[in-house]
Amino acid sequence: MPRPEPALLDPARYPFAHRITTRFADIDPNQHLNNVALAAMMEDARVRFNLAIGSAIRIGERRAMVASVAMEYLAQGHFPDPVTVHCGIEGVGRSSWTVAQLLEQNGNPVAFARSVLVAIADDRPTPVPDDYRAVLLDRWTLRA
Amino acid sequence: MPRPEPALLDPARYPFAHRITTRFADIDPNQHLNNVALAAMMEDARVRFNLAIGSAIRIGERRAMVASVAMEYLAQGHFPDPVTVHCGIEGVGRSSWTVAQLLEQNGNPVAFARSVLVAIADDRPTPVPDDYRAVLLDRWTLRA
Amino acid sequence: MPRPEPALLDPARYPFAHRITTRFADIDPNQHLNNVALAAMMEDARVRFNLAIGSAIRIGERRAMVASVAMEYLAQGHFPDPVTVHCGIEGVGRSSWTVAQLLEQNGNPVAFARSVLVAIADDRPTPVPDDYRAVLLDRWTLRA
Amino acid sequence: MPRPEPALLDPARYPFAHRITTRFADIDPNQHLNNVALAAMMEDARVRFNLAIGSAIRIGERRAMVASVAMEYLAQGHFPDPVTVHCGIEGVGRSSWTVAQLLEQNGNPVAFARSVLVAIADDRPTPVPDDYRAVLLDRWTLRA
Repeated sequence: MPRPEPALLDPARYPFAHRITTRFADIDPNQHLNNVALAAMMEDARVRFNLAIGSAIRIGERRAMVASVAMEYLAQGHFPDPVTVHCGIEGVGRSSWTVAQLLEQNGNPVAFARSVLVAIADDRPTPVPDDYRAVLLDRWTLRA
Repeated sequence: MPRPEPALLDPARYPFAHRITTRFADIDPNQHLNNVALAAMMEDARVRFNLAIGSAIRIGERRAMVASVAMEYLAQGHFPDPVTVHCGIEGVGRSSWTVAQLLEQNGNPVAFARSVLVAIADDRPTPVPDDYRAVLLDRWTLRA
Repeated sequence: MPRPEPALLDPARYPFAHRITTRFADIDPNQHLNNVALAAMMEDARVRFNLAIGSAIRIGERRAMVASVAMEYLAQGHFPDPVTVHCGIEGVGRSSWTVAQLLEQNGNPVAFARSVLVAIADDRPTPVPDDYRAVLLDRWTLRA
Repeated sequence: MPRPEPALLDPARYPFAHRITTRFADIDPNQHLNNVALAAMMEDARVRFNLAIGSAIRIGERRAMVASVAMEYLAQGHFPDPVTVHCGIEGVGRSSWTVAQLLEQNGNPVAFARSVLVAIADDRPTPVPDDYRAVLLDRWTLRA
C-alpha cells in the first residue's frame, strides 16, 4: 500500500498549520470522521496555505488549479476534538507544484494528502514564475 | 417577517457559546456562507450544548429528538473568519424544550435558530424529568 | 409542537417535484439522513423550483433572498433510496412570498419546510412585481 | 501529471454505474462542482458498488477498509445536471483490491478516482477470501 514514508508524518517538518474544529455532521455511521469531511478539511487548509503563500507573492495573471489529490487514511478521526492540518511544498516542477498535508488529531496522524497544483494562463498550463518558485522553495517547502 | 426580537440578538444573554472555524467548502457562488453550512454549524453547536447540559445531569432512559428547527438569516457570513454560536434554553414545556441559538461573526449577527427538542421514551413523547427540567431552567436558560 | 397541518402532507397539492438521490455521506451515526443533508435537499429543490418559476417570468432587476426556513422533522429518512421534494407557493405578501416543501421517501413524509423569500432591489425589500405575483398565484400555488 | 491512461476514460469498460443528482450546495464560488462534492459522489458510488458486489457474495467476518483514494480532476462539473459514476475493479492483491471510478456528466469525463480497499479481520489486514476474489475478478473487473 502507498503509505507515506515515515518522515512525512513529522509535523515539525511542515511550515504551515491550520486548526479546524470538527462538526457533528462530519461523523459517519461508525462515529468516525468520514472521508468527505476529511476532504473538506484538507481543501480548507490548502486554500488557507495558498492564501498565506499569496500574501508573500502573487502568481500574477496566472491562477492555480488543483489537478489531483491523493489521500491516505492512517487512523480514525473522532468528534468533538479539533484537528490540525500541517501543510508544506514537497516539490516544484516546470508548471506545477506538490503540496503535502498531514492531518492530525490529539497528536495522532489521521490522514495524509498529496495535491498537485498547476499554474494556468489562458486555460493552459504555464511555467511557474521564477519569483513564485523561489518563494515556494525558500519559505514554504517541507523542512529537512 | 418573523425576525427574532432584538433582545435575542444580545450574546450576553446566552449561557453557552462554541466557536467554529469556517471552511472553504462552506461558501456558495456568492462567496457567502451557504445556508447548508449554517445548518451544520447550528447543529454542531446544539449537539455540544446538549453534551454540556448532559454532563450536569442525565435524561435517564429517555433521549432527545429534534422536532423542528426554524432559522432566520440576518446577514451574510464570510470565509475565512470563524463564527461563534451562542446557545440558551428559551422555554421548557411538558415533554419538550426550546433552544435559541445566535450565530455571529466578528460581532455581527448572521443567523438565529429556534429548535424544539422532545423527550422520547419507547418512541413516544414523554414528560421531561423534573431534575432535568430544573437544570435546564436554573443553569442553561437565556439570561434576563 | 408546530406540526404542519395534515393537508400539507398531500403530495398531490404541490405543483412541482424534484427527485434527489441520497448519498452515503448524508447519513448520521444512527443510519438516518441527517438534518444537514435534509437542509441541502430542501435548498436544492427550492433553487430548482425558483428556476422553474423563473423560466416563466423574470423578477427583473430584483432578486430573491431567503429570509427564513422553518423545518419540521416528521420521520427518519434512510439510505440508499432516493427522496422526492414537492414544492408549492403557500402565499404572496407585499414584498415576500412563502414556499412550502414536503420531502418524502417511498411515499412517507420525512420533513416539511416553509421558507420565506423576499424580493430585493438596491439591498432593500421591494414590492413583488405584479406579473411575477400573478405567475406565483396562478401556476405555482398549492392546489386546494 | 498522473493523468489516468486514456483507456480508463471509456465508460463501456466499467461493469457498474450509478447516477447521482447534483445539488445546489455542491457548487463552489466559481459555479463548478467543488472537490468535496466530487469526493462525496465518488464515496457514494463506491459504497453502492460494494453493496452490489456484496449481494453476490459476502466477505465473511472480514470487512473492507478504505486505505487510500487518489482523485484526478479532468474537467469542471456543473449544476444542475446529474452525473454518472462508473465503477470497476482494477486489480486484486493478497489482502487488498483497487477500485477505479470515472465520474462523467453529459458524456464528458469530470474526475477519475482510484481507491485501495483492504480486507480487515481483528483490526489487521487479512487475505482476500478466494471466493470473494473470484467474484471481483470474474464479474466486476474492468473490461478489456
